[in-house]
Amino acid sequence: MAGKDAKPGRDSSLERKQQAGITIKKADNFSDWYNEVVLKSGLVDYASTKGFMFIKPHGYAIWEWIQKILDAKLKEKGHENAYAPAVIPESLLAKEAEHVKGFAPECFYITRSGSNELNEKLVLRPTSETIIYESYAKWIRSYRDLPVLMNFWNSVFRAEIKMTKLFIRTCEFLWQEGHTVHATEQDADREVLDILDTYQDLAENYLAIKVLKGKKSEGEKFAGALYTTAIESLMPDGKALQMGTSHNLGQHFSKTFGIKFIDKDEKEKLAWQTSWGVSTRLIGAIVMVHGDDKGLVLPPQVAPIQIAIVPIIFEQGKQAVTEKAQEIYRRLKGKFRTKLDDRIEYTAGWKFNEWEMKGVPLRIEVGPKDVEKKQVVVVSRVDGKKDFVPEKDVETFVEAKLATVQKQMLEKSEQLLKDSGRPAKGFKELKKLVEARSMAHAGWCGDGKCEEAIKQETTASIRVIPFGKDGEGQGKCVYCGKAAKHMAYFAKAY
Amino acid sequence: MAGKDAKPGRDSSLERKQQAGITIKKADNFSDWYNEVVLKSGLVDYASTKGFMFIKPHGYAIWEWIQKILDAKLKEKGHENAYAPAVIPESLLAKEAEHVKGFAPECFYITRSGSNELNEKLVLRPTSETIIYESYAKWIRSYRDLPVLMNFWNSVFRAEIKMTKLFIRTCEFLWQEGHTVHATEQDADREVLDILDTYQDLAENYLAIKVLKGKKSEGEKFAGALYTTAIESLMPDGKALQMGTSHNLGQHFSKTFGIKFIDKDEKEKLAWQTSWGVSTRLIGAIVMVHGDDKGLVLPPQVAPIQIAIVPIIFEQGKQAVTEKAQEIYRRLKGKFRTKLDDRIEYTAGWKFNEWEMKGVPLRIEVGPKDVEKKQVVVVSRVDGKKDFVPEKDVETFVEAKLATVQKQMLEKSEQLLKDSGRPAKGFKELKKLVEARSMAHAGWCGDGKCEEAIKQETTASIRVIPFGKDGEGQGKCVYCGKAAKHMAYFAKAY
Repeated sequence: MAGKDAKPGRDSSLERKQQAGITIKKADNFSDWYNEVVLKSGLVDYASTKGFMFIKPHGYAIWEWIQKILDAKLKEKGHENAYAPAVIPESLLAKEAEHVKGFAPECFYITRSGSNELNEKLVLRPTSETIIYESYAKWIRSYRDLPVLMNFWNSVFRAEIKMTKLFIRTCEFLWQEGHTVHATEQDADREVLDILDTYQDLAENYLAIKVLKGKKSEGEKFAGALYTTAIESLMPDGKALQMGTSHNLGQHFSKTFGIKFIDKDEKEKLAWQTSWGVSTRLIGAIVMVHGDDKGLVLPPQVAPIQIAIVPIIFEQGKQAVTEKAQEIYRRLKGKFRTKLDDRIEYTAGWKFNEWEMKGVPLRIEVGPKDVEKKQVVVVSRVDGKKDFVPEKDVETFVEAKLATVQKQMLEKSEQLLKDSGRPAKGFKELKKLVEARSMAHAGWCGDGKCEEAIKQETTASIRVIPFGKDGEGQGKCVYCGKAAKHMAYFAKAY
Repeated sequence: MAGKDAKPGRDSSLERKQQAGITIKKADNFSDWYNEVVLKSGLVDYASTKGFMFIKPHGYAIWEWIQKILDAKLKEKGHENAYAPAVIPESLLAKEAEHVKGFAPECFYITRSGSNELNEKLVLRPTSETIIYESYAKWIRSYRDLPVLMNFWNSVFRAEIKMTKLFIRTCEFLWQEGHTVHATEQDADREVLDILDTYQDLAENYLAIKVLKGKKSEGEKFAGALYTTAIESLMPDGKALQMGTSHNLGQHFSKTFGIKFIDKDEKEKLAWQTSWGVSTRLIGAIVMVHGDDKGLVLPPQVAPIQIAIVPIIFEQGKQAVTEKAQEIYRRLKGKFRTKLDDRIEYTAGWKFNEWEMKGVPLRIEVGPKDVEKKQVVVVSRVDGKKDFVPEKDVETFVEAKLATVQKQMLEKSEQLLKDSGRPAKGFKELKKLVEARSMAHAGWCGDGKCEEAIKQETTASIRVIPFGKDGEGQGKCVYCGKAAKHMAYFAKAY
């Protein structure tokens, strides 16, 4: 299906249609631009089920690369994958009071199977703490059984009443949820921060998206957690996007579900737990942060195709060009994710546009002149820069170039966050910054009432309270003027 | 959690408990033996949601290997992965008449979200033809868009009223479902058989399970298909297990959903479609076919751990043994999936039992005598055979041995199928064979009434009609005595 939306019919004007490509400018209407890009580049589509998405091969392939990278990192740290049911008895979800309060309003309920009414309603998992912990309680007996380090790749369901935004807000999304059990609070703390660091590594070094790291306020924490940490980034429209969360659940769930163990001192103790996740919204973040008026721009690390080779065919020298393109392809394909686009029914120009729209980091052009000069032309998607590269150096050049592109993209994202994250001295300034699509760094007394009032008056919420010095209170609360307990980042959020 | 169920408590008699290990003999009570093995070896557990399973890390890791192998083969043939919603509007499922008739009785229905009654009931996908094809109809316009070769790794839901059997019959299971669209009937036929061959390759050369391949009868085909092909194997209790199916859907769904394309001749045509799948029941098959009275026996190709190294520690020579075991581990770990079991709280004997129960193909023992003799002891799980291998040859020996084990296991399975698949000349003989836990190969007139009567009187159904000569009618129908149209395999089935 690759490029389907843009393929010309025999007697149609699709060539022109595709030439138009992305018609909305990112700077003009960010939201409409985003929709056009995710749809036209073949990442995703709306599904027949209202509020749900159909992730198409190009989008799913990006998710597979994210999975592969993160899965290897988690396994390296000793985590194992498992699978828990997608369906939870209502009574089980209700066991932890805070948790059910947070999730029940957006749950889907199953009430019938075949023609039978169910005795007990079942809930489509909005997250799996309850169904997993009921089993953990059965399996854990001794300190020897700890830590339990399990991870689950699945999908979760939230009946979203707000408008659907593909990858960002849909009734079902793909994610991983980690669920660990530890003997001590310190072990759980360590796991929470270790995972958050792993998420930061994924975001910055693979997705090329600079993030802020910190703790959530009480008002924004996960329903049922002791505390929540998160990585957040700023999108080009000035809204923050939560990119991943890592929760210390304390003993809230172990108390409710009876996850106890006999410790080395032969005493029975309640276990400490964590849970954490990242989702397909990361793909949305990639689109927003890196995309441009031509479409997607994919970071090489997660690009399903890293290099597209396009032979430029004229009648003269046709065979030489074709053979050279094939030779370059053979040399690169084992080392890089390479596509040779030798379709005859499309012009080279049409192909350039297609691979640009799909975000392929590098394009290699091979024309008759290049064959003559024993060179290829390498065009970088991120800045359009052309390099004329001697044939014999192509592997080395491309390897270095992909690394450069990855770095360039991260630097661009760092700059965006730096430019936008501004200190706000007073409430008026905070309001102005938020209006001006910035993230405001301001003092906060720690009172939920001030947090709520700020939200009411500016629509900005506390995204994170940074760890360490950046999060320590300085001066006054930006709202009430009392002594600031924390310095927090405020922004509108997705 | 590895081995959790069997870990000794400090002051408990769990050591003895584990020594007991698997307490039921495979030959005595196959069904109870199966349950004990899947539970005690840590593959899977019952979940809190009735009829659902919790796949534990050891079981899920086998599934990950199956996925990795099959996914690579499918991608090699040009298939791409995607994700479609888990939830289908009821009206959409109902569009294809045969399809909904087959699936509606076992569907789960969602009627509420939060506190709102839904306007239209949603169905948890029992299979995804309808939701996927509604989108295909939107995306496909021209012969240039064909073939569409998509595959979906997900889970499906069937409200099973029969008793739960872990991996074999549960209300949710993991699988892949392939959904392809072609321009011609021949292309669809070719895809159906190509996929069936791929499934056979997976079953025989990776899971080491010999299968029969063929077509299903009209009565046993997929609801909505033109015809269904399948691979079937025989379990040691004489019941057949369907291991994978590949359907030619003809134009049944393309007609219903309007999947049309403009062909090269500029005429609008209905597309031809296929769908196909294998599921986590393959893990159940591995357990049944290969397991023994000590527990699991895993084929090397899909064993999460292929080699367990167990140092045999006495006070004397302790350090030399430990170091030798570590050295062997370092040499093997990059090439084979190797585990060094250097836990100090367990005896070597206890560890032997644990890795045997978990089905690890090879165990390497390193004791003081072995260090002296510059050798290691390699013990094969499948037959308990011990080899004394010079240290320097360990990589070569292990590599060859794993290949031998894989072959041995397939041969054993071939023998089982050969011994059990018998020709039945008359109905009495067929009845006897089925009673005696065999698969009966017999003539069938092709009439569904005879098929149904045989099922009523023997509980055996037609598993497959082999392709080619083995499936051609010879002599008389085993039931009615009319001319046989086919030779079919009859057996009780899971």
